[in-house]
Amino acid sequence: MRARAILFDVFGTVVDWRGSVAAALAATGARHGLVADWSALADAWRGQYAPSMNAVRQGRRPWAILDDLHRDAIVNLLPQFGLQAMVAEADTLVKIWHHLTPWPDSVAGLRRLRQNTVVAPLSNGHVALQIALARYAGIEWDMVFGADIYRHYKPDSETYLGATALLGLAPGQVMLAAAHNEDLAAARALGLQTAFISRPMEFGSPDHRAVPSSDWDYVATSIEDLADQMQDKTATA
Amino acid sequence: MRARAILFDVFGTVVDWRGSVAAALAATGARHGLVADWSALADAWRGQYAPSMNAVRQGRRPWAILDDLHRDAIVNLLPQFGLQAMVAEADTLVKIWHHLTPWPDSVAGLRRLRQNTVVAPLSNGHVALQIALARYAGIEWDMVFGADIYRHYKPDSETYLGATALLGLAPGQVMLAAAHNEDLAAARALGLQTAFISRPMEFGSPDHRAVPSSDWDYVATSIEDLADQMQDKTATA
Repeated sequence: MRARAILFDVFGTVVDWRGSVAAALAATGARHGLVADWSALADAWRGQYAPSMNAVRQGRRPWAILDDLHRDAIVNLLPQFGLQAMVAEADTLVKIWHHLTPWPDSVAGLRRLRQNTVVAPLSNGHVALQIALARYAGIEWDMVFGADIYRHYKPDSETYLGATALLGLAPGQVMLAAAHNEDLAAARALGLQTAFISRPMEFGSPDHRAVPSSDWDYVATSIEDLADQMQDKTATA
Repeated sequence: MRARAILFDVFGTVVDWRGSVAAALAATGARHGLVADWSALADAWRGQYAPSMNAVRQGRRPWAILDDLHRDAIVNLLPQFGLQAMVAEADTLVKIWHHLTPWPDSVAGLRRLRQNTVVAPLSNGHVALQIALARYAGIEWDMVFGADIYRHYKPDSETYLGATALLGLAPGQVMLAAAHNEDLAAARALGLQTAFISRPMEFGSPDHRAVPSSDWDYVATSIEDLADQMQDKTATA
């Protein structure tokens, strides 16, 4: 059965967080006359993403939006990269994650999918971040699901099932599209359909993470490819 | 200070519920060979709107989405209008409220406002209803705030402040736009800016409800007029 709604992971699946964050860090550094391995800093920043959310998910830290988690992480990392001078700009740096560049196929692919299907982000970003990101990237969503709606981070079931309930749909009527196998595994365990979007450049160079680890309902090389495949399936159904 | 986000009441402010509901009821009735005062039935249906939500707001009824409240109301009303034969179609009739026609200025006005400001509905409709309505009417929102996100109906403070918090804004940075004085009064009491959109035909003919009852921050004759006024204010600021 064709999904009535498709929920998209955003960071890595729809937008190139690594390239965008590294470029924005470099631009800020340049204003300070600072040189560093900006991609390594972007990676290190992203490296604290899962641990910081796990602290919330496991109750070791009270609810906090991604801006706050990002802020703590960058304040911690800047001195390690010899960038103490940029700590005063932490609030500005956090906003880098509100303005990330979409992969070349994202905007057109999402527009095509939306012609027949409700399309929305299901992100660990909060609603305000996702609104800013969509406006910056030129993405039109039907709805924005942010982690602060349910005060849970993926892969907590409250996120997938919370969005599904707000859509008025059963889990089997909803598909998660993501570049991350573990996100899809959590969604499938709850009954959602799954689409793997391979993003080999998410982490700078291809590795095992860009390879599907299971027989996901769709395996696509881009969001446009997913739109193609769903169109073919509808045409032959 | 210019509002960073504008929240719109939907039923009556953005869409013509009365004309749309009466026309859809008439079309269903015609299929049954039934004749009735369809506008009066639409009015009666809408007449149960506030009382049914008040039952939820006051704890006399557990949380229920507007579809469920609408269903109970129409099942109750049809026999009173000699339309017992249509009770079996209650589930279809409820969906009439998912497909309402916007006022002529709504789509263009919202598009203009969105160029500079986050724009979202703040409706007592649920998220799924609002998504369907926006797709039907051709409205692009930045976010959809439905009553089921907070499980509260306006004018409960949880709705206005819940949306404001998810936007990451202070109440004073957000404006409510509505055709209903009491909705604006509740928003103003919480610190939101206010815009009254006069909709004299909402109830079929102009009456006192289309007249502003207070010195709202903006008083406009349409959403395009609101866009004009905000543009003028920015230009002269």
